[in-house]
Amino acid sequence: MWVVPEKEIAGLMTAEAAFDAVESVFAAMADGKAYNFPVVREAIGHEDALYGFKGGFDGAALNMGLKAGGYWPNNQKHGLINHQSTVFLFDPDTGRVSAAVGGNLLTALRTAAASSVSIKHLAPKDAKVLGMIGAGHQSAFQMRAASKAGKFERVLGWNPHPDMLGRLEETAAEIGLPFEAVDLDRLGSEADVIISITSAFEPLLKDGHVKGPTHIAAMGTDTKGKQELDPALVARARLFTDEVAQSTSIGEFQHAAGQGLIKDADVTPIGKVITGAHEGRGDAEVTIFDGTGVGLQDLAVAAAVVDLARDQGKAVEVEI
Amino acid sequence: MWVVPEKEIAGLMTAEAAFDAVESVFAAMADGKAYNFPVVREAIGHEDALYGFKGGFDGAALNMGLKAGGYWPNNQKHGLINHQSTVFLFDPDTGRVSAAVGGNLLTALRTAAASSVSIKHLAPKDAKVLGMIGAGHQSAFQMRAASKAGKFERVLGWNPHPDMLGRLEETAAEIGLPFEAVDLDRLGSEADVIISITSAFEPLLKDGHVKGPTHIAAMGTDTKGKQELDPALVARARLFTDEVAQSTSIGEFQHAAGQGLIKDADVTPIGKVITGAHEGRGDAEVTIFDGTGVGLQDLAVAAAVVDLARDQGKAVEVEI
Repeated sequence: MWVVPEKEIAGLMTAEAAFDAVESVFAAMADGKAYNFPVVREAIGHEDALYGFKGGFDGAALNMGLKAGGYWPNNQKHGLINHQSTVFLFDPDTGRVSAAVGGNLLTALRTAAASSVSIKHLAPKDAKVLGMIGAGHQSAFQMRAASKAGKFERVLGWNPHPDMLGRLEETAAEIGLPFEAVDLDRLGSEADVIISITSAFEPLLKDGHVKGPTHIAAMGTDTKGKQELDPALVARARLFTDEVAQSTSIGEFQHAAGQGLIKDADVTPIGKVITGAHEGRGDAEVTIFDGTGVGLQDLAVAAAVVDLARDQGKAVEVEI
Repeated sequence: MWVVPEKEIAGLMTAEAAFDAVESVFAAMADGKAYNFPVVREAIGHEDALYGFKGGFDGAALNMGLKAGGYWPNNQKHGLINHQSTVFLFDPDTGRVSAAVGGNLLTALRTAAASSVSIKHLAPKDAKVLGMIGAGHQSAFQMRAASKAGKFERVLGWNPHPDMLGRLEETAAEIGLPFEAVDLDRLGSEADVIISITSAFEPLLKDGHVKGPTHIAAMGTDTKGKQELDPALVARARLFTDEVAQSTSIGEFQHAAGQGLIKDADVTPIGKVITGAHEGRGDAEVTIFDGTGVGLQDLAVAAAVVDLARDQGKAVEVEI
């Protein structure tokens, strides 16, 4: 078993490598060569934690395994971040475990890679303005990945708590783009691409905010009840996601689906655009990608990082 | 993360330690302090393999994690056994992975421990004759564990393929008991305790075979369609299991339940006998324990073996 510790991931994995891994596995999912297993997610009744497993099998890349971990809201007292996870890869030829990889940074990178894959394939032509809704830990990863998927010239940002906007300003400076804090009216009318990455439980971006050709990557909703977008906005947009059933049950599209405004058949797996089986944006004014997060993304980036770590002598081999 | 490789387990884990771990976790389950997560089990469409995860949380022992692995029927070509699994333990206080343990031998030991726990708590007083139905790989583990849970004086054995009975004879010799191959009529009328451990898909032991006070540990049925016992025998016995819902859906009791002969309420978690909340055998002539196998058993024996390995310097610590 190869072990790649959390502390090595930052020096090994790049946004570009995560992009390639996630784009490939989305395509394999659309081709029916890769599929995710049912998700296990349990409130264990200890430390208010949520714990579970996201597994899958990619028959194209021959990746198999799971991410195990969850959310420990009291972890600050241990000097640890609240989201903790580990990815385990198995040899699909034999069933033997082949790798254990720290999953914390990988989760941030694979989530950011998903929105940037959607930007590459769905953003309006010549998109120049990136709008960021949300300024939490994940927002910096999202902006960095997006800056590599499109040729953005400036960044607009909004956050429910304005005091956190400094993170967006700093990240924009880091990637060399001017940043401006704006209200959602300006963000919705000026941004060509919008990434929403919040923990909201009510629609932040309203239908009336969004004007002109726009691509929206809705990345914050992964649970029943969470919501970032106005269902009316969803209803008038062309819809894409990583996994359709998940998007309309626990993803952003749960609300429009629940109100009968959209059906599962209205949502296209992004992999079909990647493989060319679907035209993608076409003549749609607004496209939305609902990034719900699937286990296969975790396996894809973990497999990539194990290869990099082995090449660079940073993986530890241990008998098991 | 502590790593305990498969090759070290045999030198570390004993039937006694597995017994104690499994008895404790069954009690914790009955007390509502430990619970199993939904099982993930997937036919991945590669190498005819079944792969999945059995997880759980034991709030009494503070064990949390999963066993991942499955069944690879073509593994002989790789020089490996068909059942391959690995157990991962996590720290329930923080969500960080704490151990990875080879799970192959542990699975055999925890399965054997379950039947021997049932023998300790449910066998008729002064049980002297052990009957074994099945002579596959698992049967030796079952007989060894049973010999420590009861004071048996001889062993009777039957197997669908008589040419395999040598394994039972050798195992009985190893533990110092006389062995006799018999038909099911004699086995059912003479044995005080019967362990069935086959891969049968039809009832082997009929109601008419079983005479006098008897305890039966039915250990072979873990899938829809498998069956070892006559539903009429199940219907007249006092019933126990590790997990009720599993026993009546994919365990031995699925058939009697499916025919309306028993209800879930007729089946008692063995943990309730261990804790004293249920009288156990009482005045029943026949008791049956349906050992379906739960993830918490795997976590319990894995946690025990990690402690032993650390004490004896046989666990490898690796940063993750």
